[in-house]
Amino acid sequence: MDDMLAAVLYAKWDPKPEYKPTPKDIEGKLTYLGGLVWRYPELRVERRPIPKIKEDEVLIKVKACGICGSDIHMYESDKDGYILYPGLTAFPCVLGHEFSGEIVKVGEKAYNQWGEKFEVGTPVTAEEMVWCGYCRHCRDGYPNHCINLQEIGFSRDGAFAEYIAVPARVVWEITEIVERYGEKKGYEAGALVEPTSVAYNGIFERGGGFRPGAYVVVFGAGPIGLAGIALSKAAGAAKVIAVEIAEARQKLAKEMGADVVIDPTKIDSVSGKILEVTHGEGADMYVEAAGAFPKTWPAIEETIWNGEKVNAKVVAIGRAVTHVPLQFEVLQVRRAQVFGAQGHSGHGIFPSVINLMASGKIDMTKIVTHRFKLEDAAEALKFASKQKSNIGKVLIKP
Amino acid sequence: MDDMLAAVLYAKWDPKPEYKPTPKDIEGKLTYLGGLVWRYPELRVERRPIPKIKEDEVLIKVKACGICGSDIHMYESDKDGYILYPGLTAFPCVLGHEFSGEIVKVGEKAYNQWGEKFEVGTPVTAEEMVWCGYCRHCRDGYPNHCINLQEIGFSRDGAFAEYIAVPARVVWEITEIVERYGEKKGYEAGALVEPTSVAYNGIFERGGGFRPGAYVVVFGAGPIGLAGIALSKAAGAAKVIAVEIAEARQKLAKEMGADVVIDPTKIDSVSGKILEVTHGEGADMYVEAAGAFPKTWPAIEETIWNGEKVNAKVVAIGRAVTHVPLQFEVLQVRRAQVFGAQGHSGHGIFPSVINLMASGKIDMTKIVTHRFKLEDAAEALKFASKQKSNIGKVLIKP
Amino acid sequence: MDDMLAAVLYAKWDPKPEYKPTPKDIEGKLTYLGGLVWRYPELRVERRPIPKIKEDEVLIKVKACGICGSDIHMYESDKDGYILYPGLTAFPCVLGHEFSGEIVKVGEKAYNQWGEKFEVGTPVTAEEMVWCGYCRHCRDGYPNHCINLQEIGFSRDGAFAEYIAVPARVVWEITEIVERYGEKKGYEAGALVEPTSVAYNGIFERGGGFRPGAYVVVFGAGPIGLAGIALSKAAGAAKVIAVEIAEARQKLAKEMGADVVIDPTKIDSVSGKILEVTHGEGADMYVEAAGAFPKTWPAIEETIWNGEKVNAKVVAIGRAVTHVPLQFEVLQVRRAQVFGAQGHSGHGIFPSVINLMASGKIDMTKIVTHRFKLEDAAEALKFASKQKSNIGKVLIKP
Amino acid sequence: MDDMLAAVLYAKWDPKPEYKPTPKDIEGKLTYLGGLVWRYPELRVERRPIPKIKEDEVLIKVKACGICGSDIHMYESDKDGYILYPGLTAFPCVLGHEFSGEIVKVGEKAYNQWGEKFEVGTPVTAEEMVWCGYCRHCRDGYPNHCINLQEIGFSRDGAFAEYIAVPARVVWEITEIVERYGEKKGYEAGALVEPTSVAYNGIFERGGGFRPGAYVVVFGAGPIGLAGIALSKAAGAAKVIAVEIAEARQKLAKEMGADVVIDPTKIDSVSGKILEVTHGEGADMYVEAAGAFPKTWPAIEETIWNGEKVNAKVVAIGRAVTHVPLQFEVLQVRRAQVFGAQGHSGHGIFPSVINLMASGKIDMTKIVTHRFKLEDAAEALKFASKQKSNIGKVLIKP
Repeated sequence: MDDMLAAVLYAKWDPKPEYKPTPKDIEGKLTYLGGLVWRYPELRVERRPIPKIKEDEVLIKVKACGICGSDIHMYESDKDGYILYPGLTAFPCVLGHEFSGEIVKVGEKAYNQWGEKFEVGTPVTAEEMVWCGYCRHCRDGYPNHCINLQEIGFSRDGAFAEYIAVPARVVWEITEIVERYGEKKGYEAGALVEPTSVAYNGIFERGGGFRPGAYVVVFGAGPIGLAGIALSKAAGAAKVIAVEIAEARQKLAKEMGADVVIDPTKIDSVSGKILEVTHGEGADMYVEAAGAFPKTWPAIEETIWNGEKVNAKVVAIGRAVTHVPLQFEVLQVRRAQVFGAQGHSGHGIFPSVINLMASGKIDMTKIVTHRFKLEDAAEALKFASKQKSNIGKVLIKP
Repeated sequence: MDDMLAAVLYAKWDPKPEYKPTPKDIEGKLTYLGGLVWRYPELRVERRPIPKIKEDEVLIKVKACGICGSDIHMYESDKDGYILYPGLTAFPCVLGHEFSGEIVKVGEKAYNQWGEKFEVGTPVTAEEMVWCGYCRHCRDGYPNHCINLQEIGFSRDGAFAEYIAVPARVVWEITEIVERYGEKKGYEAGALVEPTSVAYNGIFERGGGFRPGAYVVVFGAGPIGLAGIALSKAAGAAKVIAVEIAEARQKLAKEMGADVVIDPTKIDSVSGKILEVTHGEGADMYVEAAGAFPKTWPAIEETIWNGEKVNAKVVAIGRAVTHVPLQFEVLQVRRAQVFGAQGHSGHGIFPSVINLMASGKIDMTKIVTHRFKLEDAAEALKFASKQKSNIGKVLIKP
Repeated sequence: MDDMLAAVLYAKWDPKPEYKPTPKDIEGKLTYLGGLVWRYPELRVERRPIPKIKEDEVLIKVKACGICGSDIHMYESDKDGYILYPGLTAFPCVLGHEFSGEIVKVGEKAYNQWGEKFEVGTPVTAEEMVWCGYCRHCRDGYPNHCINLQEIGFSRDGAFAEYIAVPARVVWEITEIVERYGEKKGYEAGALVEPTSVAYNGIFERGGGFRPGAYVVVFGAGPIGLAGIALSKAAGAAKVIAVEIAEARQKLAKEMGADVVIDPTKIDSVSGKILEVTHGEGADMYVEAAGAFPKTWPAIEETIWNGEKVNAKVVAIGRAVTHVPLQFEVLQVRRAQVFGAQGHSGHGIFPSVINLMASGKIDMTKIVTHRFKLEDAAEALKFASKQKSNIGKVLIKP
Repeated sequence: MDDMLAAVLYAKWDPKPEYKPTPKDIEGKLTYLGGLVWRYPELRVERRPIPKIKEDEVLIKVKACGICGSDIHMYESDKDGYILYPGLTAFPCVLGHEFSGEIVKVGEKAYNQWGEKFEVGTPVTAEEMVWCGYCRHCRDGYPNHCINLQEIGFSRDGAFAEYIAVPARVVWEITEIVERYGEKKGYEAGALVEPTSVAYNGIFERGGGFRPGAYVVVFGAGPIGLAGIALSKAAGAAKVIAVEIAEARQKLAKEMGADVVIDPTKIDSVSGKILEVTHGEGADMYVEAAGAFPKTWPAIEETIWNGEKVNAKVVAIGRAVTHVPLQFEVLQVRRAQVFGAQGHSGHGIFPSVINLMASGKIDMTKIVTHRFKLEDAAEALKFASKQKSNIGKVLIKP
């Protein structure tokens, strides 16, 4: 049997008038400006051939794959029928990029991090970002800013499928996780390495981390924010304060280790509450994982200004294309700094997250609230799209 | 003869209705909110007693003292007669904080950095910020954010005078500078250590510097910006690009080492010009020394967004109490970061700047365009106030 | 009643022939070279006046005080009767510097970190190092290298006493710890802040820490090493490997969170074992807290060389005046680095450790194996001296 | 005409008894342990086919190529006829890896750092290290520690030839250098980018650089040390102190900007002299570029110990497989740190060095003391081998 089940997103190449192709766009096939081009998205669960692997790829039998906000934004469309996701996309494309699975076939030159050939039977996960390794940013150690980037589940086939072909260089072994937790929970944890790595990159690589005993505020308790809470707790934050409006996620924030959960809708001043909890000092690090800067930044700025601490770090992980008013005076008087974060690759991030899971320091599977079968992938996306922030992570399991 | 000439600022304690004293304000004497309190400023050049020193102080015979923008803002008043300077002030006060001189008296416990008593005859300069050494920020190594700060020429008598008493811990020897350049130029250089240190703190301490071969853009070519240009050049920037509107300062920017000087009034796009000069890459560091964020930040943001470089640093040194629209997406996609900078103390900054002058790596005296006698201090301030950005640094020389 | 019980070390000023006074030595009173000068040490538990406080000091009623290796080295003497401790000492001196207590009197200018006067009744601990705040190293943010250092329990009276006078600037509030654990355990934890801070300074300030998910090896499981284990665990190390020869301390290492404890006397190759446990990679950080470089360094060097990891950090906290053979080639090929660590002051270390204890992230009281009354201080020192590494921490409780 | 002149090193595969092949050795062809395997080296200048390029390579017409110490060590042999060079080698091999030239042919997928195809006629230089881009160290941003490394002029054909084929990912454009200096000097400068980058990597990437105004000591004034002097000067060192025994190189050190040159053979104490020149402080950075640790390390350790400065950095760039006695106590009391450095790739190093040359901040061509024609390559190596440290850089120019 050479074919497999897969959930494929189809859409029509029908550029809006304002669309100007980027130099890397391929007419009718690929664009860096998804929302301006793709119309009438439709997710079809269908049979298609099992992918052939190239010599530097492995074939992975998928065990679990999370639904990401980006998946929903490719699935959802605006009133004119255009997809909401603004970025790199090439349809039709099997969606799904937060996954784990077992290697079933290994290309001739499919080497692991230590230059050894991958082996059939190895449990693995993979980065979503297929960086080139050669461009200026890759060679300088910034693969999250690769200029030749391809993205699994966006511009090349993803893991809402029984099988997926992946370049070996983005594949990471998770044997220790599966050994610790068993197949079921182990592979679910494995599927959560990618979103956890997004938080890890923001907090530890971009923000440079914080010292044990620090106070950390995480805005937004979606999967990335929840990972941020768990990671901050694991890294020795004395207090982790979560700010989240959705009740379901407030509960998850607590479960992931938040010491204090603030519901901005039930309180006069988020900033005042943070200062109260931190004895008037404010936090050492503010993690924006809500993508709601017009609301979160003023609270951050006010807290920094009114708190006694200097040297606070702000890490922006959430995404939102919008301008917000910022007062440099606050950064100056309080010796503060702001870092923008993107991606999850490089910097030893994946192996660090895997180690954290394998050692039991974090258990991200607690955020999984729903599971769907692969044949129900369309229903799963519909469900996730409707529920929004009333849920934690939704998994598709072939 | 026990008295001396000094230029003293007098003003009336007459709080505006909106004034609420800070916990550290002293009724009728000292406030952290100058502009809300002090009315009808008047600079009187008068004779007053030579200061008595405390046991941890030295008495310095002033040789040169620069006029700073803050001096002008204390001297100038709004339509209701209130001073423009918003911060810590205690009047009457001898103004002047960018100075050099010769030690003429040494307190019993007036030790230098190595624990030795200062000696009469030593050429010195001093920090303007009299940090306490004991508060949380001082003990953590951040004296620029001392919570018990006193400021020379603002809340304690300054150096528009023949003599000044200064706590030993903020005094630095400049013998090597005077030896290199002789008395006249040496002491003028010494008076420029403080403003140069403000730029040094921003670029190297707060921004963490840049690597030799980097591209640096400096916005604003007032004394701080000019110091930033000289320092960037001395630190190995391959290209220093200055952005400045005043012609006189454009010329000084060139003299201090700027490779390219952009006049924003004569060009369509500052960002476009920076990209052109940097081969489409953009800069490694953007130094805001203009205090004009509503104009400079958009240019910075646009350059970062359109340039190929990732990892750029933005350092905000200029001051302006205003909000500007910022898009975090730019910091994220381009891996950029923003640092707020304040002050000039600690971190080995003063001795580093002194070393740079003593070794001839920078010559800040080139920015001195006007010199006044102490008895003409009022006239000097008036002149500086009128000329604004048509001048470089103005010195008062007793 | 104006007097109190105290354990005072007496010794005779009787310099060895090779002794040359340092510039700061005071004949008959104070030396920086203890072991060359002080003879016939004798610990007397005696009554003496309760100390008078200066205006910047607080008087603390001592609740608990740990015995440090240095205390033992002042108490022990060589065959000629000279004390073993080599450093700054001024006898007679009340020993004891790892302490906690309650404030009972507050000087006029005894301010806390935020510039507020301390209050009677506040539970506190203190740094042992009384840094000056003014010398070059203090003003640059390196109080652990203060050139005017005085040391509590070495050159000024310590806390093997009912009361101690301490400069406010080295005093830290521990109310939250006492609230969490109650008086008994809370003050014992408070007495352990100082040694924990020594490990914290080494790992996080000097070594710059490690990222969560890292492998950390700690050599030596005395109190500093045990703190290093607890801190590394709290900071998210995926695996903490302890290397220790004494059985009692191996057990404590486990209790403090070590995942693997290696007994070098029962194994062929320490390096081989570390590599086995780390999948052939070696560690991200090696912490030397044994002061046994001739044995530990070769193991570290071999592990770095044979492991696959690059970029490892080595932090030297243990003390031993001896040369050991080091091969730079190993640091070069493996991109490794070595940091020397000393002290516990500055850098927000004390408040961070206090936060970690107050939040329950670390519980250092587990290492307390013996408690003595103040009147039995001499016996306690004798006991600690005899038992050496068969014990954890010994506390004196007035 | 399809053939070209090239200087090829031949040697016999004749392993010593103690040789044990590494897993990556290829019998009769390639070894990681050159000195244990290759016997009777012979350099033949001969005609051979112009290399065919692969799709990711460019063909470069060589304009200049420096002789490196490694070339000499491959050319020289011990008393048993084995080459002195200990590392990765595959003979026969065209030697030469410090080169520049003009692109004459471009592979289909030969992209530059920004993803654009290279163009014929572009002046370029190249890294010697052909890193893979995919192994753990490459993806973490440490290409100098690539586990799949190939080396130009060692394990693949080098640039003592008229033409060389080079993977595009290690090729860097030097148009601006050639434009600034003209063809002759421009290409000579281009051939010096690689050794300059070795010093740059050590000082700025591994050592993290120093702040402008710092004192820097460079041990050894061979080409790497001379580059270190020039770079330190360009980066704003207030004083650069060179330590060198050979007179010819002492002179070059001066020319490259050393403020003080110390001849250890003519002075009692190198350390004493450094302290004298630095006012008793010692240096901020010590750069070992001599590969003579048994002599240089004691001088460094003594200077750090006796100087007043804390926080000094030591960077080891020179290579020598030997153990030297080190006292950790010195690193501890003086808060010092030691970094091992290797390589020149990644971290934006090549483009930074190119920018420094193109902007005139450094002129490395001053160190070129001798030039040979390609047909005289054997003679050139012989000359360089004999002269040792009496010369600067020797260039081969086809």
